[in-house]
Amino acid sequence: PETKLPKVGTTIFTVMSQLAAEHGAVNLGQGFPDFEVPGRLVDALDRAMRAGLNQYAPAHGLPALREAIAAKTERCYDHRPDADTEVTVTSGASEAIFDAIHAVVRPGDEVIVLDPCYDCYEPAIDLAGGVAVHVPLDPATFAPHWGVVSAAITPKTRMLMINTPHNPSGAMLGADDIAQLTALLRGTDIVLLSDEVYEHIVFDGARHESILRHAELRERAFVVSSFGKTYHCTGWKVGYCVAPPALTAEFRKVHQYNTFCTFTPAQAAFAEMIREEPAHYEQLGAFYEAKRDRFRAQLEGTRLKPLPVPGGYFQLVDYSAVSDLDDAAFCRWLTTEKGVAAIPLSPFYESPPAGQRLARLCFAKNEATLDEAIARLGAL
Amino acid sequence: PETKLPKVGTTIFTVMSQLAAEHGAVNLGQGFPDFEVPGRLVDALDRAMRAGLNQYAPAHGLPALREAIAAKTERCYDHRPDADTEVTVTSGASEAIFDAIHAVVRPGDEVIVLDPCYDCYEPAIDLAGGVAVHVPLDPATFAPHWGVVSAAITPKTRMLMINTPHNPSGAMLGADDIAQLTALLRGTDIVLLSDEVYEHIVFDGARHESILRHAELRERAFVVSSFGKTYHCTGWKVGYCVAPPALTAEFRKVHQYNTFCTFTPAQAAFAEMIREEPAHYEQLGAFYEAKRDRFRAQLEGTRLKPLPVPGGYFQLVDYSAVSDLDDAAFCRWLTTEKGVAAIPLSPFYESPPAGQRLARLCFAKNEATLDEAIARLGAL
Ligand SMILES: CSCCC(=O)C(=O)O
Ligand SMILES: CSCCC(=O)C(=O)O
Repeated sequence: PETKLPKVGTTIFTVMSQLAAEHGAVNLGQGFPDFEVPGRLVDALDRAMRAGLNQYAPAHGLPALREAIAAKTERCYDHRPDADTEVTVTSGASEAIFDAIHAVVRPGDEVIVLDPCYDCYEPAIDLAGGVAVHVPLDPATFAPHWGVVSAAITPKTRMLMINTPHNPSGAMLGADDIAQLTALLRGTDIVLLSDEVYEHIVFDGARHESILRHAELRERAFVVSSFGKTYHCTGWKVGYCVAPPALTAEFRKVHQYNTFCTFTPAQAAFAEMIREEPAHYEQLGAFYEAKRDRFRAQLEGTRLKPLPVPGGYFQLVDYSAVSDLDDAAFCRWLTTEKGVAAIPLSPFYESPPAGQRLARLCFAKNEATLDEAIARLGAL
Repeated sequence: PETKLPKVGTTIFTVMSQLAAEHGAVNLGQGFPDFEVPGRLVDALDRAMRAGLNQYAPAHGLPALREAIAAKTERCYDHRPDADTEVTVTSGASEAIFDAIHAVVRPGDEVIVLDPCYDCYEPAIDLAGGVAVHVPLDPATFAPHWGVVSAAITPKTRMLMINTPHNPSGAMLGADDIAQLTALLRGTDIVLLSDEVYEHIVFDGARHESILRHAELRERAFVVSSFGKTYHCTGWKVGYCVAPPALTAEFRKVHQYNTFCTFTPAQAAFAEMIREEPAHYEQLGAFYEAKRDRFRAQLEGTRLKPLPVPGGYFQLVDYSAVSDLDDAAFCRWLTTEKGVAAIPLSPFYESPPAGQRLARLCFAKNEATLDEAIARLGAL
């Protein structure tokens, strides 16, 4: 029979990383750091293995890690979720998003996503039999227009997905967004899915408006995060979901029959790391802000125009002074001809804004890597 | 709204492990070993982390691991799958089963499962919108009656799931089963999903009839395995799926949007271990056969009657000389009152055979653990 997922190809991240490798390009495409994991984390994982923590963890996650997540949430967001009934460890934030969607979305249900959005959202909705309803963010600021979101709500709307800090733009929801979102959902039974994997990478003294700070919203929300971005280990694939007990119960039904549980030694290592070195995540914003500022200053010397970056890993650049190519063609050309891999924005949209000339560059890199990229980009 | 998965509770493995912990029972319930992971594997994982292999692996798996899986398959089953287009690494066999089902099963499709079967099969089918069609194995031998399977096929049958060596019984498909299965599927477009996680734990000189040995069957099959059982690390959660290119392409669409990729350092470690120490998996059958034989001999001194165990981790025992309780009640009683946790068979069935008095005991344990369990069971 014909394929079940005709719209799905290979993710843009895989495609561009392969192209980068083939052409020896500096890879500023797929979002991952090229510096080291904190030494304590590696040592703790090693100790856990040698102490024999190598069998199935409890499906919901090691109790020590769920407790550490609860304590960290309280420290960061003034709210302590219950570790037993509200926190579930997953094999990365991707799995958590997939499980949350499958836990509540039924065939025919609508899920509102805000474009541009991360490319795993829609296929997971499709697989659950749901329908993704795409609402554009503001093309200049990447802020939601809540009135437009509201107009997209129908009796079939089962879920609304948000992402702050936002991939690919770095835009962050503010207090006013939270107020409008709260009013919008009040009286509905719409579930909120908040993807907050860049929660600790926020700049310029801004406050991350985690949904976990907001009592009315968190009562209807799956809040998903991950340790990959926070601890420079995107390949470790440990994430988690915080949700009220009734949603967590449904979430765990899917999780236990999907991956069942997650690599045990890493769970023990993250529990120790979170507990013993809060300074790591508290200083992460400053660490990345310095990278952002340095990279941005370097870009001023090129014909790529950098957009503001409130948070996250990524610098968007307007390349219209350099090229008339569409973004997919431009990013291929940049990778193969100029030796710098970037990610086009169009795969993040159902219908990309006409004439948009933006590319995404990851600055979660060592200075030498960024310097080499700038040397190549300066020649444009 | 009401729950989407009303039939799903907490898995029996979690329930019984919790009960065992609460009552200080010797845990012969959930299947996991209590002895050490091979030292080389731990060292290799540690080296991989310290060498900086901590970022996203390619979504399909590290090339070195996919090559090692292809080479091992050739060595064991006289067939070499293509590492690029036919092998995909997953976060455990559970994820592989979940992805394979979601890759091909559409709403309304029927999936034949052979009861008793592992408890993650049906929820994954349900989530994909499919319908599990339960066909009983022989209640005495746990062999399939292929005529009965054949009678269950309808125009809606999309998939047939098999499991050899079989959990919970240890039964293995033989050459005659393969011949009948081949004839049964010929001319249909039914996809086969073969769960072979106990592939190296086979006894008495028997040959594991991996579907990968059989050209006609493997052309329509997802063959799923895992390293958890083979390398005594059920908590490491690295599995894989071998399937022809067209099925692999569909499988990868789901996988890349579910977990995306799997803990990178473990992938490097398994690649080294498989390549450098084939003796480990070649001698695994003998290692477990000695445990089975010793445990069985000890059971002869109790009122529990052991059934034959052709392969796998588990000894089924008939407890009808001890108790009239149904199996769920008996296993609870054994755990809480006698201090030995076991798994009832009824959760592996849609409708358990009336009056069946069987419990599952895991013998993947150190001698001291099994001795303690026998001391407690002998008092029955
Ligand atoms: C899972 S690969 C993509 C990594 C990422 O978060 C990004 O590049 O947007
Ligand atoms: C994933 S927990 C169950 C482990 C297992 O394979 C079993 O006990 O049957």
